[in-house]
Amino acid sequence: MPILVMKFGGTSVATPDRIRRAAKRVGLEVAKGYDVIVIVSAMAGETNRLIELVDDIAPLYDAREYDAVVSSGENVTAGLMALTLQEMDIPARSWQGWQVPVRTTSAHGAARIEEIPTDNIMAKFAEGMKVAVVAGFQGVSAENRITTLGRGGSDTTAVAFAAAFGAERCDIYTDVDGVYTTDPRICDRARKLDKIAFEEMLELASLGAKVLQTRSVELAMRYKVRLRVLSSFGDNDESAGTIVCDEEEIVESKVVSGVAFSRDEAKMTLTSVADRPGIAAAIFGPLAEAGVNVDMIVQNISEGGRTDMTFSCPTREVKRAQAALEKAREIGSIDFEELVADTHVAKVSVVGIGMRSHTGVAARMFQALAREGINIQVITTSEIKISVLIDRKYMELAVQALHDEFELEKAA
Amino acid sequence: MPILVMKFGGTSVATPDRIRRAAKRVGLEVAKGYDVIVIVSAMAGETNRLIELVDDIAPLYDAREYDAVVSSGENVTAGLMALTLQEMDIPARSWQGWQVPVRTTSAHGAARIEEIPTDNIMAKFAEGMKVAVVAGFQGVSAENRITTLGRGGSDTTAVAFAAAFGAERCDIYTDVDGVYTTDPRICDRARKLDKIAFEEMLELASLGAKVLQTRSVELAMRYKVRLRVLSSFGDNDESAGTIVCDEEEIVESKVVSGVAFSRDEAKMTLTSVADRPGIAAAIFGPLAEAGVNVDMIVQNISEGGRTDMTFSCPTREVKRAQAALEKAREIGSIDFEELVADTHVAKVSVVGIGMRSHTGVAARMFQALAREGINIQVITTSEIKISVLIDRKYMELAVQALHDEFELEKAA
Repeated sequence: MPILVMKFGGTSVATPDRIRRAAKRVGLEVAKGYDVIVIVSAMAGETNRLIELVDDIAPLYDAREYDAVVSSGENVTAGLMALTLQEMDIPARSWQGWQVPVRTTSAHGAARIEEIPTDNIMAKFAEGMKVAVVAGFQGVSAENRITTLGRGGSDTTAVAFAAAFGAERCDIYTDVDGVYTTDPRICDRARKLDKIAFEEMLELASLGAKVLQTRSVELAMRYKVRLRVLSSFGDNDESAGTIVCDEEEIVESKVVSGVAFSRDEAKMTLTSVADRPGIAAAIFGPLAEAGVNVDMIVQNISEGGRTDMTFSCPTREVKRAQAALEKAREIGSIDFEELVADTHVAKVSVVGIGMRSHTGVAARMFQALAREGINIQVITTSEIKISVLIDRKYMELAVQALHDEFELEKAA
Repeated sequence: MPILVMKFGGTSVATPDRIRRAAKRVGLEVAKGYDVIVIVSAMAGETNRLIELVDDIAPLYDAREYDAVVSSGENVTAGLMALTLQEMDIPARSWQGWQVPVRTTSAHGAARIEEIPTDNIMAKFAEGMKVAVVAGFQGVSAENRITTLGRGGSDTTAVAFAAAFGAERCDIYTDVDGVYTTDPRICDRARKLDKIAFEEMLELASLGAKVLQTRSVELAMRYKVRLRVLSSFGDNDESAGTIVCDEEEIVESKVVSGVAFSRDEAKMTLTSVADRPGIAAAIFGPLAEAGVNVDMIVQNISEGGRTDMTFSCPTREVKRAQAALEKAREIGSIDFEELVADTHVAKVSVVGIGMRSHTGVAARMFQALAREGINIQVITTSEIKISVLIDRKYMELAVQALHDEFELEKAA
C-alpha cells in the first residue's frame, strides 16, 4: 500500500468535534487505498497551559523535565484521534514518541531527529491496521528520556516520518488554505500558489510567512518529500492547498513567485568608523557573541580613511547590539563617532527561483519602488531573493507595487 | 541510605502552591537522611477532564487508547514535582511508568503490577540523586503499551515500590489526617487511630471507609510494607497520621477498633422457595453470572418443604438481580412466590483483631442495638468483623451506640 503522512496542527484538533472533522479527512485517504500515518499536535492552548505550569514552578527549568511535561499534550491528542478513527470503523492505534521510537539527540527542548525505525508501524500495517497516529513534536533520547523538537516541531515530525516511510506525500493541515503570493491582508490581489519550490518556501518561511516551520522545509528539501499545505476547514480535493516540491517539478515558473515582508527589523548605523582591514570582524564578532542576528550589512564608500557601517537586526535585539558595541568601543577594539538605531524600517523581498535564469529583476524592483517615491535604504541579494530595507510607513505600498509589477495575481 | 516512599494524591498536588507544599515535606525526609521515592497522582480534576474527552469521542472506548490518554495527568505532575524539588536544590528527576519500567499485565484500565526493576532508580540514587518522582497509576505491558491500574491505582503503585525497594515505610498523603474509629461526620466522639492492623484496614476499606484502595492494603499485607496514612495539610511529626501494620506490631489492642457502615445496601427476599439440595447454587449461580455482588445471605427455617431466602447486594445492582432471578424462574431452574426488594437498609459493622481472643462481642453489639430499639434484619460474622443489616433511618444512631458501647473514644 502507498503511504501518506497527514499532519494536523493545534487548531485542527482543538475540540472533539474538530478531531472528528480531521478524522473524516483521514478516512477519505484510507478509502483511496493509502496506509496513513497521522501526526498530531496538542489541542490548541494545551501546550501553553503546560508551559505556564512549568513557568510558575521553575522559571529556570531543567529542560528534561520541561520536555516530560509539555509532551503530554500531543499524547492526549494521539489517543483521542485513534479512538475517533476506531469509532469510524477504521483500524487505528496511537504511538507516543518513545514507542516508535523516534530517536533524537539529547538537546532537550530543541532536539533533532536521528532515526525513525519503521518496523513497529510497518508490522501493524501488514496486520491490517490502516492508520498509525503518532504524537508529534517529541522523541526519546539515548538516555531513554523524553525530548521535544521545539515550537512547530510537529511539522518536522511529519516530514521526518514521510522521509523514513517513503511516503507518497506529506499533507500539512493548518488554519490557512495554502501559500500565497503575499499576505492577503496587505494586498487583496494576493493569489494562492498551486506549487512552490522548496528553496522559495525556505526564503518565505524565514522571512516571516509562518505557514511551515523552517526546519521541516529544509528536511523535506533534503529528502525530496513532497509537502502539501492545506486548510483542515476547506475543500479536500486534489487541487486544494499548495504543493511544496523540488524545483524540477515546477515546469513553468514565473520570475518572481512571492513578495515577503517583515516589520520586525531595525537599522543600526555606526558613523565614522576607521576603514582598516579587519574592521568588519571587529564589529560583527562581538555582535555574534552577544547573540544578535545580523541580517543585512552595508559599508559606505570610504572618505579620508573613515566610513559608515550599517546593518539590520530584529527590533528586540537592538538593546543587546548597542550594549555589545559600546563595550567593544570601551575596550578599544573598535572606534566610531555615533551609533544610530532606526526602528522605523521594514524589509520587503521578492522571491523566485525564476531569477536564476532571468536578469533585470532587481532593476524592475527598484524602478517600481521609485515610481511610488519609496527610498531604498539597504539592499541585499541572494540567488533567488532580493531584499530592501525601507521606511516602515511605506511597507504596504511597496508590497502592493511589487505584487503588481511582477503580475503575481496571474497564474504562470 | 534507607528508602522512604511518599505518595501524594490529587488534592495534595492540585496547584503549583500545593505541589510546593508537598515538596517541602519531601525535603524534610531528605534532610533526615532518606533517599525518597515520590509517587504522584494527577492534579485534582485532571483525570476526570481526560475521561470526559474520551467519553465525548468514544463511549465504548478501546481501553489501550483510554490508558494512553488518561495516564498523561500523572506524567505532568511527576515533571512538575521534580522541577519543584530542583528549585529547592534537591537533586530529583521524574520517571514515567515505562521508563522505570513498571511492568504490568495487559489488562488495560485494571492492570496488575508484575515487576518493578530497581536498577535504573538505584543507579541514580548511587550517583547522588535524592528523590525519584514516579508517575503513579500507570505501567507498561509486554506489548510496550501504556497501562493503568484503575481508580486509586496510585496507592497500589506506592506500596509496590515500597515492597520492591525494601522501603522503611510508605507514607500515603491524602486529604484526611488518618484512619478514624468511625466517620467523625456521623459520630463526633470518633477518634483517630495511631495504629491499625492490615486485616482491620481491609475490612474498613471494603466497608466503605475510602482512605486507602483495598488492593494497596492487600499488597502491603502480603509484603509487610508499613503504611502510614496522613494529611498533606496537617502536622508532619512522627506521631502524625495512622500506621497500618502487621498485627504483631500492635501490642495492646482493643476488642473492637472501629465501626464501619454503608448506605449502599439493598435487601432482597425470595419467599417460599423449595428447600431442596442445590437450591442455593440455583439462586446464586445466575446472580454471579449477572455480575451481582452478593454480600450477606440468610436462609429461614424450612416449613413444609419451603423456605425464604434473603440476601444483600449494592443498591445499583438490584435491577440486575431481579432480571437474573426472574429469568431463572422462567426457565424453571428456581421457583419462588415473591421477590421483595428493600432499598431502605444499611449495613453497620464492628471490626477488630481483638475479637479473635475475646468472646461476647456479638452479644454486646446486639444488646447495644436492642437498647436503642433497633431491629436486626440480617447478621454475618467473620473472624474479625460482625455486620448487621438494619433499617437505614437508624444507621447513625446505631453507629453512635456501638461507638459508645465499645468505648472507642478512649485509646487502648
